[in-house]
Amino acid sequence: MDQPQAAFFSNVNAAQFPFGLGSDNHSGAHPRILSAIEKVNQGFAASYGTDIVTEEAVRVFRSHFGPEADVFFVFNGTAANVLAIAPFVRSHNSVICSSFAHIQVDECAAPEKMLGVKLVTVPSEPGDQGKITPERIQPLLIRKGDQHFAQAKVVSITQPTEMGTIYSQEEIAELVRFCAKNDLWLHVDGARFVNAAAAIGCDLKDVAKGADSISFGGTKNGLVFGEAVLFLTERARKAATEFPFFRKQMMQLPSKTRFIAAQFIEFLGTSLWKEISAHQLTCARQLRIGLEELSRSYPEKIHFTQLTESNAVFAIFDRYLEKQIKKAAFFYIWDENTRECRLMTSWRTSNEDIKTVLKAASDGLKSGSAT
Amino acid sequence: MDQPQAAFFSNVNAAQFPFGLGSDNHSGAHPRILSAIEKVNQGFAASYGTDIVTEEAVRVFRSHFGPEADVFFVFNGTAANVLAIAPFVRSHNSVICSSFAHIQVDECAAPEKMLGVKLVTVPSEPGDQGKITPERIQPLLIRKGDQHFAQAKVVSITQPTEMGTIYSQEEIAELVRFCAKNDLWLHVDGARFVNAAAAIGCDLKDVAKGADSISFGGTKNGLVFGEAVLFLTERARKAATEFPFFRKQMMQLPSKTRFIAAQFIEFLGTSLWKEISAHQLTCARQLRIGLEELSRSYPEKIHFTQLTESNAVFAIFDRYLEKQIKKAAFFYIWDENTRECRLMTSWRTSNEDIKTVLKAASDGLKSGSAT
Amino acid sequence: MDQPQAAFFSNVNAAQFPFGLGSDNHSGAHPRILSAIEKVNQGFAASYGTDIVTEEAVRVFRSHFGPEADVFFVFNGTAANVLAIAPFVRSHNSVICSSFAHIQVDECAAPEKMLGVKLVTVPSEPGDQGKITPERIQPLLIRKGDQHFAQAKVVSITQPTEMGTIYSQEEIAELVRFCAKNDLWLHVDGARFVNAAAAIGCDLKDVAKGADSISFGGTKNGLVFGEAVLFLTERARKAATEFPFFRKQMMQLPSKTRFIAAQFIEFLGTSLWKEISAHQLTCARQLRIGLEELSRSYPEKIHFTQLTESNAVFAIFDRYLEKQIKKAAFFYIWDENTRECRLMTSWRTSNEDIKTVLKAASDGLKSGSAT
Amino acid sequence: MDQPQAAFFSNVNAAQFPFGLGSDNHSGAHPRILSAIEKVNQGFAASYGTDIVTEEAVRVFRSHFGPEADVFFVFNGTAANVLAIAPFVRSHNSVICSSFAHIQVDECAAPEKMLGVKLVTVPSEPGDQGKITPERIQPLLIRKGDQHFAQAKVVSITQPTEMGTIYSQEEIAELVRFCAKNDLWLHVDGARFVNAAAAIGCDLKDVAKGADSISFGGTKNGLVFGEAVLFLTERARKAATEFPFFRKQMMQLPSKTRFIAAQFIEFLGTSLWKEISAHQLTCARQLRIGLEELSRSYPEKIHFTQLTESNAVFAIFDRYLEKQIKKAAFFYIWDENTRECRLMTSWRTSNEDIKTVLKAASDGLKSGSAT
Repeated sequence: MDQPQAAFFSNVNAAQFPFGLGSDNHSGAHPRILSAIEKVNQGFAASYGTDIVTEEAVRVFRSHFGPEADVFFVFNGTAANVLAIAPFVRSHNSVICSSFAHIQVDECAAPEKMLGVKLVTVPSEPGDQGKITPERIQPLLIRKGDQHFAQAKVVSITQPTEMGTIYSQEEIAELVRFCAKNDLWLHVDGARFVNAAAAIGCDLKDVAKGADSISFGGTKNGLVFGEAVLFLTERARKAATEFPFFRKQMMQLPSKTRFIAAQFIEFLGTSLWKEISAHQLTCARQLRIGLEELSRSYPEKIHFTQLTESNAVFAIFDRYLEKQIKKAAFFYIWDENTRECRLMTSWRTSNEDIKTVLKAASDGLKSGSAT
Repeated sequence: MDQPQAAFFSNVNAAQFPFGLGSDNHSGAHPRILSAIEKVNQGFAASYGTDIVTEEAVRVFRSHFGPEADVFFVFNGTAANVLAIAPFVRSHNSVICSSFAHIQVDECAAPEKMLGVKLVTVPSEPGDQGKITPERIQPLLIRKGDQHFAQAKVVSITQPTEMGTIYSQEEIAELVRFCAKNDLWLHVDGARFVNAAAAIGCDLKDVAKGADSISFGGTKNGLVFGEAVLFLTERARKAATEFPFFRKQMMQLPSKTRFIAAQFIEFLGTSLWKEISAHQLTCARQLRIGLEELSRSYPEKIHFTQLTESNAVFAIFDRYLEKQIKKAAFFYIWDENTRECRLMTSWRTSNEDIKTVLKAASDGLKSGSAT
Repeated sequence: MDQPQAAFFSNVNAAQFPFGLGSDNHSGAHPRILSAIEKVNQGFAASYGTDIVTEEAVRVFRSHFGPEADVFFVFNGTAANVLAIAPFVRSHNSVICSSFAHIQVDECAAPEKMLGVKLVTVPSEPGDQGKITPERIQPLLIRKGDQHFAQAKVVSITQPTEMGTIYSQEEIAELVRFCAKNDLWLHVDGARFVNAAAAIGCDLKDVAKGADSISFGGTKNGLVFGEAVLFLTERARKAATEFPFFRKQMMQLPSKTRFIAAQFIEFLGTSLWKEISAHQLTCARQLRIGLEELSRSYPEKIHFTQLTESNAVFAIFDRYLEKQIKKAAFFYIWDENTRECRLMTSWRTSNEDIKTVLKAASDGLKSGSAT
Repeated sequence: MDQPQAAFFSNVNAAQFPFGLGSDNHSGAHPRILSAIEKVNQGFAASYGTDIVTEEAVRVFRSHFGPEADVFFVFNGTAANVLAIAPFVRSHNSVICSSFAHIQVDECAAPEKMLGVKLVTVPSEPGDQGKITPERIQPLLIRKGDQHFAQAKVVSITQPTEMGTIYSQEEIAELVRFCAKNDLWLHVDGARFVNAAAAIGCDLKDVAKGADSISFGGTKNGLVFGEAVLFLTERARKAATEFPFFRKQMMQLPSKTRFIAAQFIEFLGTSLWKEISAHQLTCARQLRIGLEELSRSYPEKIHFTQLTESNAVFAIFDRYLEKQIKKAAFFYIWDENTRECRLMTSWRTSNEDIKTVLKAASDGLKSGSAT
């Protein structure tokens, strides 16, 4: 029995894990994160969140978000989103979000099944950068009090957005005011929240100031697994009093919680989150700048479709060029219809990787033009 | 910002993680498991189960359970149970289980919320060892076809049981025949499945032969996190065709799947599972034998309430004695009314630990009698 | 096309609707109820509960239950039960009830699916008359605050019970005090609520004084269809603020509400409810007394299994006798195992009917003994 | 106690139920429907659908829709829609419908809560008449097999549409072919189904030939209450095998089923459905023609927004005119933004009523212009 496994691990090599720009969750775990897991892997610790490591991780989060923040650990991003919204709604409510929102297009109707709610999407507009605004939410706030109509209760935004763009602090502030005025809760899908802090150049607590809850991502930023659900405002903390039961019943209570906790202690208790997010953004910017330079000579072969404010470059390539770049690094076709591509950097992306991609693009442009 | 974290990890020491018999999920991760995670932490790998590590892990499972077994990885045990039942039921069905079943008493009504089903419990009987039998299930199979009554569709057993006892292969075979005859599915909650193989002395595939699905536990056997859902019979595999959607919508699709997969490759692809399960059982047996010896002189101070066939000793202690043992090693009061205690061993329990507990018990008996 | 229908209605005759003791919902609609529907069948009225007839029906309910009672109309009993509990729970809660409760055994797991909750049953005891008591509920109130365990939040009783017995006013008062002390809501399944008032000889408001909500039955008491959900205590009314949305989303908002309302105006706005309930009880008592008289000569052939405090007689008959009585009037086998039978009277049961049944029983006893 | 009620019914008069064009469910029950209820209100009948009246009603439906049609009675339209879709989906599926569909905008997210599914709306287009077409559905059929994305499984159309327009038989046939080709089920919300038959001039079975299920409306066509769920294709009937359990658990099983059944026997077993639907359409057409005539002199004061193919007229009026018409007959503002109004006729609308409305419009136009 031992042989196949032995063969597997001893044969495992870098060639089997080739560089790519598919997603930041392709890039594995940061060595310091793994090391943190090892450090707390001692003796015996209470399970289900009552151990000293989890206590410390909560303290670390509170050092960023304030001493009263409620912090709960869960396994993955879809669950973090659903659970960060759960205390605010009953099943007859609706949640307003972008038509590109992860909760709308990438969670297989988990919010609908788990919460019974309806998602109401703000129609996308050219140039909206995947964001939503009070002006475009307002027309959806209809039929208040009408028992036949799911009542809007939550606005959910993604920061950074699914398009790699960033809500400015003023845009967030406007949404906070709008929600307050309209008796709505503000939820932030923060799967890549640290990137927003890096982009804005602010503290974590100032990235989405005034939001009621945040799904704070770990997995996409170098963790093995693990996300946090934060309840930040007083009204949110009050609404979330019974959150531990929501989490357990929705099957998201980790037993060996210390292992999620240790990762977040390393990530947020040191400057690791800053290093990782800064690096991810730098790589994306280099890629964007490099491609822009190339596109000057071949303007019709590369069309940038989104700003690069975070760790992704969105562009439509000439089909031959697309193929050539993909030989150097895998990436996803984001929109089958327009052939928009997403190239995403991560903590593991190296300067060398970016150069390789740009070289492939350059070669592709030349050879493509030669034909 | 770095200081508190640095302080935390550099101050972390063994004294903060004292030995205990609380649960096998208190004991952290086996070093070889952590090492497996490190080995696959290279470069970039596809997420959501399409990577080569996950492929290998599936192969490893199939080397145990047969080449056609369907294998899916999820985060935790509650989810594994709910998802291993999901494809077999519609919400108007009921699931029959022991009144001690984890799905009944420790999952905060997750099956009810997630699946809409009713759990119907087989009333416990003195000496039933936490098991259920065809004879005691039969009277619950009433009102078939009656639209007012939730229709029984699944029998769910736990192997080893929550009481640390083991269904014999013949008992399993009887349940399989009974389920076949009564158009029921057989699900096995195998949070500690490997212990059953160790107890019986058989291959994994022979522990619950004929069962339709197994929630195969990793977390309680030395993994950082991770469970597998197995669909084994032909009819089960057919019913589970859309399982990936169930898993995703119920928020249990891990993104960096290679890290769960690597753990299972190490665990089941080598003899590690055998070493761990054998060790856990040996420790429990040593504890049981030691306590039995002590009880001969103080028969009224220790009452064993369950057989020790797996990695737990259940007993009711004299209250003073209970307190003295607990000073040496934490354990849970299993039943507040009867004061039944559960002492559970794990991969990390050492012979030394057991001796310490027995010494505490011996001292407790003597000093308790002196007063 | 007209012919078959014409044939059907012109051929419909009394012989097709033979007398029976199956259930009080077999007996059709009281003529005065139908007449009330006709009286409001004029012109045009707003739908969904905003019409003047519905307003009047609410007023009528408030004349019984107090001016602040919240009153909502729904279609049927299962829905009334689920909705009368809904505002009190989140899905991680449990509802405590008798193991005979309609919500437990006759609603196809509707509470589980609709609310996500677990039902926890008080084990039945010989002679408990289908009732539950604080003493027997108390042991179920375990693991408060334990996130792994569905938290008890509601006690649901049926008045009169499914066994046709009546909670005394003192028994209700004890349950009210117990619930207040233990932070539980008290719900009353009142599918036959008026019968309890008749049995006790009190006003409707005094039948379950202090209960938070009542599913107030119409269908089983002579209505064509229609039930009411009442929220009576201040805390219940506050919890039920969003009830109209619960009702709509759970598909129980009637559009032509005036037709349910008119029925309740006639039923509760006159003495009709008193006449019907008194009549139902008288018939059941006559049946009980008659059978008791017969049983004196044949004590081994009729065993009464429940008190007859309401509109049902529960008994186990000699098998031959059972068959002979059934020839005269259909009734249900309540318990397949013990062969307990339920004979249920209704507004349509006549003195003549009861005499016929008793005659059949008498003949059956004689002819059965002759063989 | 008798006085208030007596006062109410004896004071009830026509003035309290003034003529209006608000909705066809404002118009009460047709006298022949009430009479049918009375005719079957005899003696005792089995409940929950096993009585002879229900059998006859099923026969009547089958005389229209074919001998193999599966027919189930439920209370209201929202439930009929949800239940007519239920057997076709698991919670990870999506249902495609118009953005005006009743299931999308008027059912308070019942489909989401009850079934867990996502509704995906076809964006409305100017002049689409509230209909959806294969061409506009096609772009929504993306990401097939992608576990992150709710999989489209049902197309739900409303016939007649919420805008009072009619899918032609060829349009239906195209949708049927499209669904067959794309492994989709076709559901028809037929709350006003008979109107479509009247508009097309065809048999009921030819209105939506090839559809898998129909929510067949009664309430909006003169019934007191009651709808039917029909499963028509072989694959639909097979999928719906366990429908009685779905209906019961979703709280839609009527106990005194004979009273729904009798209404449908009268409605569909005679030509009543034809008389009612023809009348409703004639009234709407008269209203439309009358308003069109008036608008010729005042073209800027009345804009018709939809075709009048069924029993509704949609138009935007000059605000003064709108107010004047509303004095004569209540109607709803359909769209608050555009001030589009819906004037809806019913079985109870009389020629006199229409004349009154047109007179009010005429007067309003004159007096409005005078100012």
